[in-house]
Amino acid sequence: MPARFYCKNIGGRTAELDEAESHHVQHVLRLSVGDEVELFDGSGASASASVANVSRNRVDLTVNNLRESGALSRARLIVAAAPPRGDRLKSMVEKLTEIGVDDFIPLRTVRSVVDPRQSKLEKLRTTVIGAMKQSGRNHLMKIHEATDFSVALRTAAAERQIISLAHPGDIARTATETEQRDTLLLIGPEGGFTREEVLQASDYGATRISWPEGILRIETATVVFAGLLISRMYQTR
Amino acid sequence: MPARFYCKNIGGRTAELDEAESHHVQHVLRLSVGDEVELFDGSGASASASVANVSRNRVDLTVNNLRESGALSRARLIVAAAPPRGDRLKSMVEKLTEIGVDDFIPLRTVRSVVDPRQSKLEKLRTTVIGAMKQSGRNHLMKIHEATDFSVALRTAAAERQIISLAHPGDIARTATETEQRDTLLLIGPEGGFTREEVLQASDYGATRISWPEGILRIETATVVFAGLLISRMYQTR
Repeated sequence: MPARFYCKNIGGRTAELDEAESHHVQHVLRLSVGDEVELFDGSGASASASVANVSRNRVDLTVNNLRESGALSRARLIVAAAPPRGDRLKSMVEKLTEIGVDDFIPLRTVRSVVDPRQSKLEKLRTTVIGAMKQSGRNHLMKIHEATDFSVALRTAAAERQIISLAHPGDIARTATETEQRDTLLLIGPEGGFTREEVLQASDYGATRISWPEGILRIETATVVFAGLLISRMYQTR
Repeated sequence: MPARFYCKNIGGRTAELDEAESHHVQHVLRLSVGDEVELFDGSGASASASVANVSRNRVDLTVNNLRESGALSRARLIVAAAPPRGDRLKSMVEKLTEIGVDDFIPLRTVRSVVDPRQSKLEKLRTTVIGAMKQSGRNHLMKIHEATDFSVALRTAAAERQIISLAHPGDIARTATETEQRDTLLLIGPEGGFTREEVLQASDYGATRISWPEGILRIETATVVFAGLLISRMYQTR
């Protein structure tokens, strides 16, 4: 597979890479005029292209073959999780991108300790692009602004999403009934959701899920439950 | 939950921590005589205990209440994966411990690039203990010696395990039929298994599984597929 690059406009006969992607072409992979690359625009479309011109901070390409966006053949998975600290958040976002999560919402809860700043969210968007380049994924995973728990619930209910709340407890159920409906997965902070938050989620029709063994850290729970949900969306087609 | 410590012998009235765990008691958590702790021996047994004496590099405890080992109520999951580089291996082993994987085998394949040395394997065993302390897991995840692909297959077949081989391909199937039988999950290196390895696995009755979207990195595939398999072992009870 040729190296992949993110490029917002790939619909014309030519395309132009932004500074970060141009840097990758010139200084990391050291490609030259004529080399074949693959482009994706984040909407699902992709294109074969070749390097046409390389200049300072800029790479121009000739687009050879555009493949239009194909909509995903499954419902959307929106993951709202209390961000873990430091590099664990970055590594989690990479994995969520790889497996195909559609939206990531940094969740503000009563016991949350990390509230990522604007600059951190921008870095995470770059992380998503990097993971898309490696994994072959063409649909952008959207990184939302940090969102209050109650707002996330209200939005999901308004959009008639299935709501799954990961909360350790007596019920060892790893997933709700799967339907072909968009799903919101809610993952709490290290200290868990409060009793009030769990009740509030129930009011919105959320189903509680929990891991049958031990207590998972935020990023483990997020990746494992997201994987289970996506896998089941394919099984119910 | 009181702080948890690993201790090989918890069957008597008193117990003694090793140097690493004594250091944790004294210098990280700064516990003193009389403080309550929880002990686990890795076999599944655990005990309530209290600090009886603290001296240089050594902590003695009084065991108050031993809870005998309970066997797991599901089949075993053995994960054999080509080790990813550096910290990604450590983080992967932590996650496999949390979710409940029983055995981890560093897999040698044709395209493997990492072959962990003895000292690295010892460090991973310490990583497992650390993850058990945090997650509340009481059964030790065993870290095996690095093992050739063909040996791993032969052993699994001799023990009548289900063999699941993760290999990207035309079949988007995330798990084999689940039964109440021990299962070996095989995960290849970045470059994947060779055609010969895939054929060899088929000869041993392996079923191919693959993720329905994109290409997962080693550690993502390992954690997601292991999570799916454990989750299904509970569903078929």
